[in-house]
Amino acid sequence: MSKQQLHIIKIGGNVIDNSENLYHFLKDFTALDGYKILVHGGGKVATQLSETLGIESKLVDGRRITDIETLRVVTMVYGGLINKNIVAQLQRFGNNAIGLTGADGNFIRAKKRPVKTIDYGFVGDIDEQSIDPKSIGRLMDAGFTPVFCAITHDGEGQLLNTNADTIASALAVALAKLYETTLIYCFEKKGVLQDINDEESLIREIDPERYEELKKQQIIHSGMLPKLDNAFTAINCGVKAVIIGHSGDLGQLKQKQSFGTRLTNKK
Amino acid sequence: MSKQQLHIIKIGGNVIDNSENLYHFLKDFTALDGYKILVHGGGKVATQLSETLGIESKLVDGRRITDIETLRVVTMVYGGLINKNIVAQLQRFGNNAIGLTGADGNFIRAKKRPVKTIDYGFVGDIDEQSIDPKSIGRLMDAGFTPVFCAITHDGEGQLLNTNADTIASALAVALAKLYETTLIYCFEKKGVLQDINDEESLIREIDPERYEELKKQQIIHSGMLPKLDNAFTAINCGVKAVIIGHSGDLGQLKQKQSFGTRLTNKK
Repeated sequence: MSKQQLHIIKIGGNVIDNSENLYHFLKDFTALDGYKILVHGGGKVATQLSETLGIESKLVDGRRITDIETLRVVTMVYGGLINKNIVAQLQRFGNNAIGLTGADGNFIRAKKRPVKTIDYGFVGDIDEQSIDPKSIGRLMDAGFTPVFCAITHDGEGQLLNTNADTIASALAVALAKLYETTLIYCFEKKGVLQDINDEESLIREIDPERYEELKKQQIIHSGMLPKLDNAFTAINCGVKAVIIGHSGDLGQLKQKQSFGTRLTNKK
Repeated sequence: MSKQQLHIIKIGGNVIDNSENLYHFLKDFTALDGYKILVHGGGKVATQLSETLGIESKLVDGRRITDIETLRVVTMVYGGLINKNIVAQLQRFGNNAIGLTGADGNFIRAKKRPVKTIDYGFVGDIDEQSIDPKSIGRLMDAGFTPVFCAITHDGEGQLLNTNADTIASALAVALAKLYETTLIYCFEKKGVLQDINDEESLIREIDPERYEELKKQQIIHSGMLPKLDNAFTAINCGVKAVIIGHSGDLGQLKQKQSFGTRLTNKK
């Protein structure tokens, strides 16, 4: 029996912080056929709430530290405010969403990042073996659409702040065992661009060979490199394709077209 | 085929605000056999956060008004902070919990309370017909324990603040169609007391006849009246029994004993 289609879509602040963008995205997400999972990041609200509460943002080497106060804020904002408002919007469109952290359903366990030179605080690195695709499958088969925020747990009662991009790719790799899985990263550009200042210079497809060429020609720059490296890692672990594109173009997928930049193992 | 047992248990601030009480309660809750659902209220954190954020608590005739700022706070605190920490604790004990608002799974819809003399703001009155016991049953059959916070939605994208006691009884009445349902209200006393100052004067059972007597003798006072009236309404709608008791005594249920005050239709 051939595997059923699953789309895992990650959105970030550029969609969440703009209510019009979010509205259109959630409508297009609802219209997508087949199984689907939404993963969302934070946005500006957590930073604003921290500032209002007088919680100092601590950055070490450009990376944010999650102290206990910051963990409380992200649990409130990601797990409560953003997640539940997205769920209510999806319900309005007839999409039977359930909002989740990795603690819910024990779906994603993580380990508190060990302290080497930097103590990141309550940041979790995902234990990929902890994601049981059958358990998430049971939730979807019961008629529900999972909506994950960027929080996991350690299985010992501790919630942990976890990168949403990583949650999306870890879910995709685990679920690829049961579903024909496409992982979609929505961001503020049309996709990977030949010329970063020209939105019309979209590169539609990249396979590993092309990727090596683009890196040699220095068309792919530092910011995109980790994103694309992670994408090809997911593909090597069984994910069928990774799409990187603009949230406003998701509707094109409904018309059996792709959108943005499609990364695959073959042309 | 006889119906399977379901316990719906509501806890309030006196359990949530005390981490030791909460720990023991969640352990006892996990140990309960059969299907179970947890419903939790708010506690002090929402009030504290509102104060810190400079949101004025507006009371009209002693009842709290939920303006848009207060709704944001309760969505963060009930739906995020409290709900997800309870879920993480339950997972630690091996209870596969999923934290929910009424928007998740479209489980509980409500109508924004119409403005008559008082505008309560974003407060929802539950549409009892909206609760589909089969849908909640599918979630439980998939292996998950629902944990509801005191938030519902109107089906049009709007979250609404809703009384946790009412959520618990509405769930109990709807699920009584499919399950042999016991509704349990945990509060700060041992149960209904013959003498309010004597915890040893617990009344173990009350049926409708006894209830009328206790009211006549003025043993049941104003504060308990609405609680007990609601309880008997739930029983008349098919709920097998309602227990009112202390969260610390829940463990007695495991030993096939009851605890607190048990309200039923028959002796």
